[in-house]
Formats: sequence, structure tokens, C-alpha cells
Amino acid sequence: MIRIGILGYGNLGRGVESAVSQNADMELIAVFTRRSPETVKVRTAGVKVLHADELEHMQDQIDVLILCGGSATDLPVQTPKYASMYNVVDSFDTHAKIPEHFAAVDAAAKAAGKIGVISCGWDPGMFSLNRLYAGAVLPEGKDYTFWGKGVSQGHSDAVRRIEGVKDCRQYTIPVPEALEAVRSGSHPELTTRQKHTRECFVVAEEGADLARIENEIKTMPNYFADYDTTVHFIDEAEMKRDHSGLPHGGCVIRTGNTGMDREHTHVIEYSLKLDSNPEFTGSVIAAFARAAYRMNQEGMKGGKTVFDIAPAYLSAQSGEELRAHLL
Amino acid sequence: MIRIGILGYGNLGRGVESAVSQNADMELIAVFTRRSPETVKVRTAGVKVLHADELEHMQDQIDVLILCGGSATDLPVQTPKYASMYNVVDSFDTHAKIPEHFAAVDAAAKAAGKIGVISCGWDPGMFSLNRLYAGAVLPEGKDYTFWGKGVSQGHSDAVRRIEGVKDCRQYTIPVPEALEAVRSGSHPELTTRQKHTRECFVVAEEGADLARIENEIKTMPNYFADYDTTVHFIDEAEMKRDHSGLPHGGCVIRTGNTGMDREHTHVIEYSLKLDSNPEFTGSVIAAFARAAYRMNQEGMKGGKTVFDIAPAYLSAQSGEELRAHLL
Repeated sequence: MIRIGILGYGNLGRGVESAVSQNADMELIAVFTRRSPETVKVRTAGVKVLHADELEHMQDQIDVLILCGGSATDLPVQTPKYASMYNVVDSFDTHAKIPEHFAAVDAAAKAAGKIGVISCGWDPGMFSLNRLYAGAVLPEGKDYTFWGKGVSQGHSDAVRRIEGVKDCRQYTIPVPEALEAVRSGSHPELTTRQKHTRECFVVAEEGADLARIENEIKTMPNYFADYDTTVHFIDEAEMKRDHSGLPHGGCVIRTGNTGMDREHTHVIEYSLKLDSNPEFTGSVIAAFARAAYRMNQEGMKGGKTVFDIAPAYLSAQSGEELRAHLL
Repeated sequence: MIRIGILGYGNLGRGVESAVSQNADMELIAVFTRRSPETVKVRTAGVKVLHADELEHMQDQIDVLILCGGSATDLPVQTPKYASMYNVVDSFDTHAKIPEHFAAVDAAAKAAGKIGVISCGWDPGMFSLNRLYAGAVLPEGKDYTFWGKGVSQGHSDAVRRIEGVKDCRQYTIPVPEALEAVRSGSHPELTTRQKHTRECFVVAEEGADLARIENEIKTMPNYFADYDTTVHFIDEAEMKRDHSGLPHGGCVIRTGNTGMDREHTHVIEYSLKLDSNPEFTGSVIAAFARAAYRMNQEGMKGGKTVFDIAPAYLSAQSGEELRAHLL
């Protein structure tokens, strides 16, 4: 059994908990929190909730620690820190800072003889893998990534910070005509506005100036100004009824040409349709936790990304079983 | 530069030749054939055509030998034989015999200190990888593989063996309703007939009994009897005009559930739309030839499948570049 610890019990921590329960070779030992442990109630029978400080001395009880904090402030500190004590997996997704995060985790993990897997999930993660495979197979081509239809939590939060907004759910939606043009193999050049639209469902405070809120959303730099955005004002009952989930998804498409005259076109597409973003992310992380454990058992150490891990390490099946049944 | 040799110059050998020309870090040294080398004309300037016997003494000129023979009789002999002299890659696709083929190649490659990659292409190959990744991420779920729309060379050949048939092109076509049911996440149980239909374009000899030919096709065991098959009789001009290509493709779909009550459904789909089956297969093989070379440079040896190869080995980019741009 691979003994798992989870640090952080928000949406992602709960997603990992659920994923661990689906893998017969894994056992969730404890959830660690920086809050008071009594205030956290986990859903798996027999699992302890402990303060994060306890991690200082639990190296003999946990094989892989899964870090479920945020990329902005938690993971840059936590992942290197705990990679010096445990095999770790995180879902770090601040793109511009991946090189320095990798370097810090790599150094800590190498010194400790542990494996530290960073940036695990679906993007970065499964989408990254598909960009790599498709680019290696079709060196002359063009990559496209579309997100959605799905809830962007960052964009929803940005709208919630506007005065007069009580709640918001923001959906990112690929433009069907753009998808069609890409799938045709014509390698179109697409602007930000041509690729995605944004749709906001907003609960406003009583008496709030709806026209001002709508205008503030649509003109918000970085988040909305470069997109065609639709704003719907709804009441709390409708929000709860129709927008409680965290669905997401999207696709990575590469189109490229082969042949001595590059006369043949190929389209490679990887797509995800997810009812629950955090549970799917947690499921990807659980598979990479298995890989981290096994690679470390074989004596490997250091920082890893999804690119550095042979696929067989992810599966509970043996090499013989994989060759006989999946190849 | 990675120095490549190709053994066998049929459709696949030509596809590999084209792929090598698209990879700036590879150089095609020679095409090897069991025919008289004078009868073989390759399309890359400066590339020698040599008899296969020359492979006995060219170990210092070739880094990876790509075996482009057939799975029925060529590869079971050739891959172990040449794995004892070179890093090799093949596209062995006789499913039931993969375990014994792997064992033979593994033993030869280990003894010689070389890498032998077997069963490389899109199925087995990229489809296998996607079955593995999706199954590891969603352990509770169901796999579906659809092929087409595309030309099945085995089925086309089977029809050509019928008396009175001059030529045939057979297309395998997924049933749209089956695809839709799978993508809905309802995990349907589908029979062979429910998943694919088959369509044959046949050029008959003058005066042949068309009704007999059609009946022989539709009732042919293993190849057609379990499918709904449509037969069109056409003339040679139409065959040449509309059916000269070798397009193919298909998709691997896994649907699965997550959540403490398995209440959320996810759909993972990987799909290929290929203008040229042999050129795409050759492109996959070229990427894995790079991996074989690099892994061997690092001291690794033995039999490998796509499952055993960390994705980063496939790409011409460095780890730093991959993390900065593709992750």
C-alpha cells in the first residue's frame, strides 16, 4: 500500500481524497491543515486530521505527501520545504514561475533522496503531455489549446471583488467557429477574442447599479477586456440550482503536415469533458503519486514533471499486464 | 545528428523517410532492402540503397535502425536479430504475440547493450499510451477504441483475394450513434456491429458475377460477417481518382466517474484524423527513434514499449525548454 498524506483540505484536497479512495493500492493516512484540526471534517472513515506541524516527524508513516495549496503563496514555500522530507506532488500552475519552482524543488528533493513532482493536473499536466507528444510526432505544425466550457475560478473571484456583487460564476467557452477552423487543418491565426467567449452569472446586492457592474466586468483589463463577454443577473436561488458545480474541460489540438512535399495534413486532438475540475485534477495527481513512490523505490530522486515520468509508472498494472492488455 | 537506417521500403519505409526529413537532428544514412538495391529508388538525395546483408557490418555508421517489415513473418525474425546489433524500432502489431515478441527483443537488446522499441505507431502506439494514461487517471471507468473513417489494408487485401475482384479499397467507419452514446458518459455495452460499419469500393473483372462477389464479401468470417457492410462496384478510373490515398484515424475514449459517491462523470478523448496512415506511423516511429538513441546514450538497454519511455525523450527540445514552453 502506498501511504498518502494530503496537506490542505479545500476543493483540491477533497478531490485527492476521493481519488485515493478509488485506487486499491493507496491508503490515505492523514489530512494536514494549518487551521485547527478540530474544525476540519474529512469524509474518509478512519483518517486523522492533524496540524501541518506534525509533518516534521511523520516521515516513517507517509510515502507521498500531496500538496493542495495555492500557487500564489503556498506552493512556492511548501513544495521545496516538504520535498526535503517526503516524496511530494503539487499542482503548481503559475506558468512564468515554473522554471524557478522546479529548480527549488529539484534541489531539495535531490538533497533528501526524494522525488518531487510539480505542475500536475490537466493543464499543466495532461494537456502539457499532449502538447509534447503531438509536437514530437508532427514537428511541422501548430498547437492550439482551448479551455471550456467550464468554470474559471480566477475569473469568478475577480468579478466577486466588484462593488455590489454578492456572487458570480464565470464560464469560459470556446468559439465553435474557431474550433472548426482549427480542426480543418488550415492552421488559422486566431486572436484571444476569436478563440473564447466569457459568460458571467452574477448575483447583485439589492439596489446595486447593474449597468455599472456590467460595464466594470466587460472592461476589466486582463480578465475580460480582450473577450466578448455576456453578463446575466440572476438571483441566489438560480445560482444555487444551476451553477453549483465546477465543470471544466477543453482540448489540445495540433495540426501538422507530412510527406516529401508536406502534402498530407493530420489532426491530433485530446479533449476533456469534466463534471468536476478538482476531482479530475485530484485523480491525475493520485496517478502521479503512484509514479513518485515507485520511482523513488527504484532509487530515483529529484524534481520531475509529467514529461520526465515513463507512463508505466502511473498504472497499477505490471509491465506484462500493460503489454498484454493495453498495448 | 542521429544516424538512421531503414530496413524495408514499402509504404511504411517511405513514411519513415519523409518523417526523418522533418527532424533537424536526424540524418537518413541508408535504406536497406532484401530486393536488388538497383531496383529501389529512394526520394532523399544522397541516401544509399544497400542490400540488407550489409547490415552485418555497419554498426559504426547507424545509430538507430527502423524496421519497416510486416508483423506476420518479417518482424518476429528481424527485430530480435537486429536488436543484437543496433538500437531498433519496429511497429509490430500482432496483438496476441506481443508478449513473446517483447521477450525475444528484450533478451537480444539486453545482451547487446542496445534499446529495442516494439509496437510503435498509432495503434499500437499513441492509442495505447492514451489507454494507459486515461485508465490510470480514471480507475473506475470504461475504454472504447474506434477506428476510422479510414482504409483498412488488411480488409482491402482480403477482398482482393476473391475471384473476379481486380481491386478493392475498404473503409472502416465508426457508427455515429455509438460514438455519441460513448461520449455521453453512459458507459454503453456495444457489439462489434454497433461500433463500426464497413464500406467496400470494388473493381470487378469484366463479366464477373457481381452478386456472388458482394455475397462473398458480406459473409466473409472475421473480416465482414460481424459487420454491416456496403459494397459499391466502381471502375478503375474512379478507383484511381477517389481512392488513391491511405487516410485513417479514430479515437480512444475513456469515460469514468469520481467523487465519494462516484457522482461525477468525465470523458477523456484522444482522436486522430490522418491524411496518410503510413506517414503518420512513420512520424511516430521517428520520435521514438530519437528516444531510443538518447536512452541508449544514457546507458539504458533492453526491450521497451511506448509505456516505458518518459515523454521528454521524444522531443528535440531540452528539459528547460519543455518546462518553459510546453508545461
